[in-house]
Amino acid sequence: MGVLSPDAFEQRLRAIGAARYHDRHPFHRALHDGKLNRLQVQAWALNRYYYQASIPRKDATLLARLPTAELRREWRRRLEDHDGSEPGTGGIARWLKLTDGLGLSRRYVESLRGLLPTTQFAVDAYVHFVGERSILEAIASSLTELFSPSIISERVSGMLRHYDFISEETLAYFKPRLTQAPRDSDFALTYVKEHARTAGEQDAAAAALEFKCAVLWSQLDALQHAYVEGHPPPGVFLGADTAEAFA
Amino acid sequence: MGVLSPDAFEQRLRAIGAARYHDRHPFHRALHDGKLNRLQVQAWALNRYYYQASIPRKDATLLARLPTAELRREWRRRLEDHDGSEPGTGGIARWLKLTDGLGLSRRYVESLRGLLPTTQFAVDAYVHFVGERSILEAIASSLTELFSPSIISERVSGMLRHYDFISEETLAYFKPRLTQAPRDSDFALTYVKEHARTAGEQDAAAAALEFKCAVLWSQLDALQHAYVEGHPPPGVFLGADTAEAFA
Repeated sequence: MGVLSPDAFEQRLRAIGAARYHDRHPFHRALHDGKLNRLQVQAWALNRYYYQASIPRKDATLLARLPTAELRREWRRRLEDHDGSEPGTGGIARWLKLTDGLGLSRRYVESLRGLLPTTQFAVDAYVHFVGERSILEAIASSLTELFSPSIISERVSGMLRHYDFISEETLAYFKPRLTQAPRDSDFALTYVKEHARTAGEQDAAAAALEFKCAVLWSQLDALQHAYVEGHPPPGVFLGADTAEAFA
Repeated sequence: MGVLSPDAFEQRLRAIGAARYHDRHPFHRALHDGKLNRLQVQAWALNRYYYQASIPRKDATLLARLPTAELRREWRRRLEDHDGSEPGTGGIARWLKLTDGLGLSRRYVESLRGLLPTTQFAVDAYVHFVGERSILEAIASSLTELFSPSIISERVSGMLRHYDFISEETLAYFKPRLTQAPRDSDFALTYVKEHARTAGEQDAAAAALEFKCAVLWSQLDALQHAYVEGHPPPGVFLGADTAEAFA
């Protein structure tokens, strides 16, 4: 593909989201439509905890490579959003309210026992990606946030309507993301449009966004295979009762 | 668990293989029993190519960290086995005979297009593991080779019997592995039994072997989900005809 104008390149990136973002995955549709049982929702929240808890590792890995105070200030805000400014605040702490509400002990959730290995491989691939690729590719890989506000709105309303074990309080994670994600993705999109100037750079940035879509998709494929189609791999979470025996 | 005698520790390691090695996976059973169609066997060979091609990266990553000439000599032999000593020799070249025989062009196979993202995440997790963990854990993670001779014998006889598109020549990869794998795993097992002296070291080595079993299992889960249960993720291989369009 030849080099595109910044706006045409933005359309190329948005088309990747339209085709590959995980809002199209059957597990997400089932989650939002109330088609999952409690164990399946627990498995989702438990595995997704590892993603949430790894995002600051990912952002710190990139932060350590950013060349200017301006870029580092921008990226540091992401760490503040996820890690908070005191104990009990920030995105990870809010995610634990969801796993609390689902009856999973914090000791078990934080132990990472019972995680699907594929969750760990996919999430760690994302952390390694931002440490190994160009700054442009690392920033472009965050652009799935362009597509997250609509999935979050759907998820919150769908889950509240369909599951009696889900409340506004347990979904506390999501509300701040509705303002944080657009702010972050505005910055990242502007950066990527400005710095992907050659056809090669645009291809690399587009491939980085495809990679990140695959990181999210792979996690849902593994959840669906294990917990919807009934093929849990050896050693994974099989319900809160058995979980407590390990923790 | 308290510290075990070397022989009792070996039994602990062998029990991990008995419970978690991928010979127990339904995809492998289907492969050996002739239950897969040609496209499913192609998808297996294509994805497994990435594992085969990454093993020398994995071994070189560990080789670079080994402290003595004796250990490095031992580990260098693994690179020779996989990369060969001249073009067209070695395990990777022999694997390409299988993908050739299945009608996949080398250009497509080597391009890595169409790979399941989960294959890439799992294999790369293995390469990173041996770069980041202790030498003991890195060597212990190779111990799945203790269990490979029996799966290879089953695979070769089962595939030759059941698939008319498979010949002795296309399965050339496997025969040398029947002698290489035991030689390699004898060395690694002796090393691990000698160096895992505390309960903590034995736990870490056992966890490394569990990790490696999960690396193999995750790849088969992804193949089964995509190609047996019919949920291929966006962008992956869907048959040799469509593949050539990309390569």
